[in-house]
Amino acid sequence: MSELKEIGITTKKEGDFSEWYTQVVTKAGLIDYSPVKGFIILKPYGYRIWEIIKESLDRKLQESGHQNGFLPVLIPESLLSKEKEHFKGFTPEVFWVTKAGNNELTDKLAVRPTSETLAYQIFSKWIMSYRDLPLKINFWNSALRAEIKATKPFIRNSEFLWQEGHTVHENRKGADEEVFLILDYYQCIIENFLAIPTIRGVKTEKEKFVGALYTTTLESLMPDGKALQMATSHNLGQNFSKPFEIRFLGRDSKQYFGWQTSWGLSWRVIGALVMMHGDNKGLILPPKIAPIQLVIVPIFKNKDRDIVIEESNKLLAELKEKEFRVILDDREEYTAGWKFNDWEIKGVPLRINIGIRDIKNKNLEIVRRDTGEKILINREDCSDRVGFYLDQIQRLLFEKAKEMQDNNIIKVSNYQEMKNILKEKGGFILADWCEKEDCEIDIKNDTGADIRLVPFNNKPDSEDKCIYCNAHSKKTVIFAKAY
Amino acid sequence: MSELKEIGITTKKEGDFSEWYTQVVTKAGLIDYSPVKGFIILKPYGYRIWEIIKESLDRKLQESGHQNGFLPVLIPESLLSKEKEHFKGFTPEVFWVTKAGNNELTDKLAVRPTSETLAYQIFSKWIMSYRDLPLKINFWNSALRAEIKATKPFIRNSEFLWQEGHTVHENRKGADEEVFLILDYYQCIIENFLAIPTIRGVKTEKEKFVGALYTTTLESLMPDGKALQMATSHNLGQNFSKPFEIRFLGRDSKQYFGWQTSWGLSWRVIGALVMMHGDNKGLILPPKIAPIQLVIVPIFKNKDRDIVIEESNKLLAELKEKEFRVILDDREEYTAGWKFNDWEIKGVPLRINIGIRDIKNKNLEIVRRDTGEKILINREDCSDRVGFYLDQIQRLLFEKAKEMQDNNIIKVSNYQEMKNILKEKGGFILADWCEKEDCEIDIKNDTGADIRLVPFNNKPDSEDKCIYCNAHSKKTVIFAKAY
Repeated sequence: MSELKEIGITTKKEGDFSEWYTQVVTKAGLIDYSPVKGFIILKPYGYRIWEIIKESLDRKLQESGHQNGFLPVLIPESLLSKEKEHFKGFTPEVFWVTKAGNNELTDKLAVRPTSETLAYQIFSKWIMSYRDLPLKINFWNSALRAEIKATKPFIRNSEFLWQEGHTVHENRKGADEEVFLILDYYQCIIENFLAIPTIRGVKTEKEKFVGALYTTTLESLMPDGKALQMATSHNLGQNFSKPFEIRFLGRDSKQYFGWQTSWGLSWRVIGALVMMHGDNKGLILPPKIAPIQLVIVPIFKNKDRDIVIEESNKLLAELKEKEFRVILDDREEYTAGWKFNDWEIKGVPLRINIGIRDIKNKNLEIVRRDTGEKILINREDCSDRVGFYLDQIQRLLFEKAKEMQDNNIIKVSNYQEMKNILKEKGGFILADWCEKEDCEIDIKNDTGADIRLVPFNNKPDSEDKCIYCNAHSKKTVIFAKAY
Repeated sequence: MSELKEIGITTKKEGDFSEWYTQVVTKAGLIDYSPVKGFIILKPYGYRIWEIIKESLDRKLQESGHQNGFLPVLIPESLLSKEKEHFKGFTPEVFWVTKAGNNELTDKLAVRPTSETLAYQIFSKWIMSYRDLPLKINFWNSALRAEIKATKPFIRNSEFLWQEGHTVHENRKGADEEVFLILDYYQCIIENFLAIPTIRGVKTEKEKFVGALYTTTLESLMPDGKALQMATSHNLGQNFSKPFEIRFLGRDSKQYFGWQTSWGLSWRVIGALVMMHGDNKGLILPPKIAPIQLVIVPIFKNKDRDIVIEESNKLLAELKEKEFRVILDDREEYTAGWKFNDWEIKGVPLRINIGIRDIKNKNLEIVRRDTGEKILINREDCSDRVGFYLDQIQRLLFEKAKEMQDNNIIKVSNYQEMKNILKEKGGFILADWCEKEDCEIDIKNDTGADIRLVPFNNKPDSEDKCIYCNAHSKKTVIFAKAY
């Protein structure tokens, strides 16, 4: 039993949320720490989740004519500094290569913090005419930003896996459409696969991507009342195409600068997944994203071993045939109890217990990870019932998260109320704002909350007042403390 | 016509091989150059070839219980230097990160030249008992080695895409078996997919991977008479497990050090593909690795446009249904002649021309990229014939390459003969060797050729003499000049 205790989660989610999170990501076998502070390693179970997310998004990108490519990880400083705002934004967190072997480099090299500058230097050579547009390229790679703040696995690391998409269009309309197509894709993946509800909107001028015309974002509320930015999609306008000279011959034979977008989704969404659905026993994975959707655990005394193992293998084959991601845990060096615990920590959505009595009675016991419920089913209905429960778990996880989020979007009408709520329990605070950056900054300094987003379809002109300065309100926005 | 000429290959393969190669990889749209010398960018067409190779190998690795993971790209110097020989081998070509933002780092960070040291530091925490073995982890990532010699796209670059596998076993037998399983996988991918014949063997002590017990290798002969190392699989013995303390509790309750392997296959094989099969019109891709296996080009005068396009789309749907990788080139801004050229440079194995006369006669014209042959087929046999010709092209490309290689494996019995052949035309020189490193080094300095490999199943003891020093020969080995 002491072994069971040691591998289990020893903190409560509702108690020390941060410690609970750290225990889950490590004990569920998602990550380990690199000897270099701020960097993590993905163990196979964690990496497989990323691969499933990648495959889901990549399919959508391919269908709409995006193509993958590869860019080097080292970018010369001279290139990075070509768009001034952009460079200023990234320079405090860039890792710099200054030596190759024993030789000092004359132009030092940045380890990719993001690839806009390198990609656009190249795009300027590839694009000659409107016939070359739209150009839609995606890169699955990692980006590096030296994190000075406290790091947190998946949420804030000095290196993270992501995809970065970069497109060039003939006009603003093309770029606008691309920005929103991608935002839709991201929302689909996050809501339908990861079962995490999101709110859509645009970032303020202060919070937008450095160098962008505007930044659209998906924000989710975590169970501890803090917001997490899930993914962003930027319209870069012509801010990069001008310094990088991405010019094309238009349909009217005149020269134009391209309109550009860039967009990214990182492994941060795995962190959100853990926070949102996990419980005091460990991870809970939505079936669509689970590397293992169900595990079969044979339970037997020695004399029944062969029969139970044989039946387990039959069941395994049958469920594999139906394309469920299923494994049989026939390890002999562990007890059934140890295995139950192991798969619970790892968040496998369904477990099937199979013993000699089940075989005789033509029954099976299914155990749901999300509710702990044990359900006796007919052996012959197995694959139907498995499909049913996986669908149900997927749906209920989303609904539960949605209810939590909806209950914590709170409209406030005065600043003191906002401060109280932020202090007590956090949440998404819906408040009026005059659109002045001074108010935004003062509120941030005073409460720690910033404007996460300006929801789309914002209000028409009204008599409302800015929550902070009482001036005429221009927008209703969402404030929150954030990761 | 001037446009045709400009995009075409302007050098002969049999003339300036090196210039021909550079033109093919760029004009076929595989790569572009980074502004940093020695680094390349993969355009979508080139990257897709890598993705297909990756999917093929990954499937095999998964089937035999290997799992993918992720490791950070930055490795502390202190870790890299833990295995002394290994560190000495890599240190002249390491890119060093010495600054993060404006801060100097105290322990400088290597940009991953290979991950043995970081992986094994972590493995030592994961492995406690024989129950944790074998541990078989693979990483799809890039590695960086500052190339001082002349660089060449895919063949020698300062950053390259690859996979690196790392395994730990209970005993030498387990590690030996893994080394050869992987060598088999590599050979299968390279011969059956890339259609490139290989020779298997082991590296000499001088040429083995730094820190390995022994290195197995696959070597291929390129059409210019130079050898290319295609992939390597190393038995590391306990050389890393001791300094990194990868210890496990054995079945007899005693502590043991693990036995390890590492192995890698890089995008270099794409370079080999280009060299081996390409011709004076450009790339020729073996069907199994071709992103586009066939292209349909509609040919029409204006009045027939709608009928021809409609029939082309029908054909496209039919061939897609059969899971061929097929596209319809219905771009209206280019002539048919321009398109023929474009797809020839890109090496698409088959082209189907479809015009109004073909539709009326229920015929189609298939054009083979490898032979240039035009074949009239019945419309209704189309998908059968496409399958037949793709198989045939795949097989014939391999056979042609195999014949070239076989004709250039030359057994020599005296040193002067060897020097003459190396000077005249290169090739794989089969020669006797005393196993002394002095001879190996002298021959290298004198001729530029080194021992590419010691073939497996080497000769029993005989009366043969070392080609260089005339001492008793221990092994028959293959010398060649190499990339």
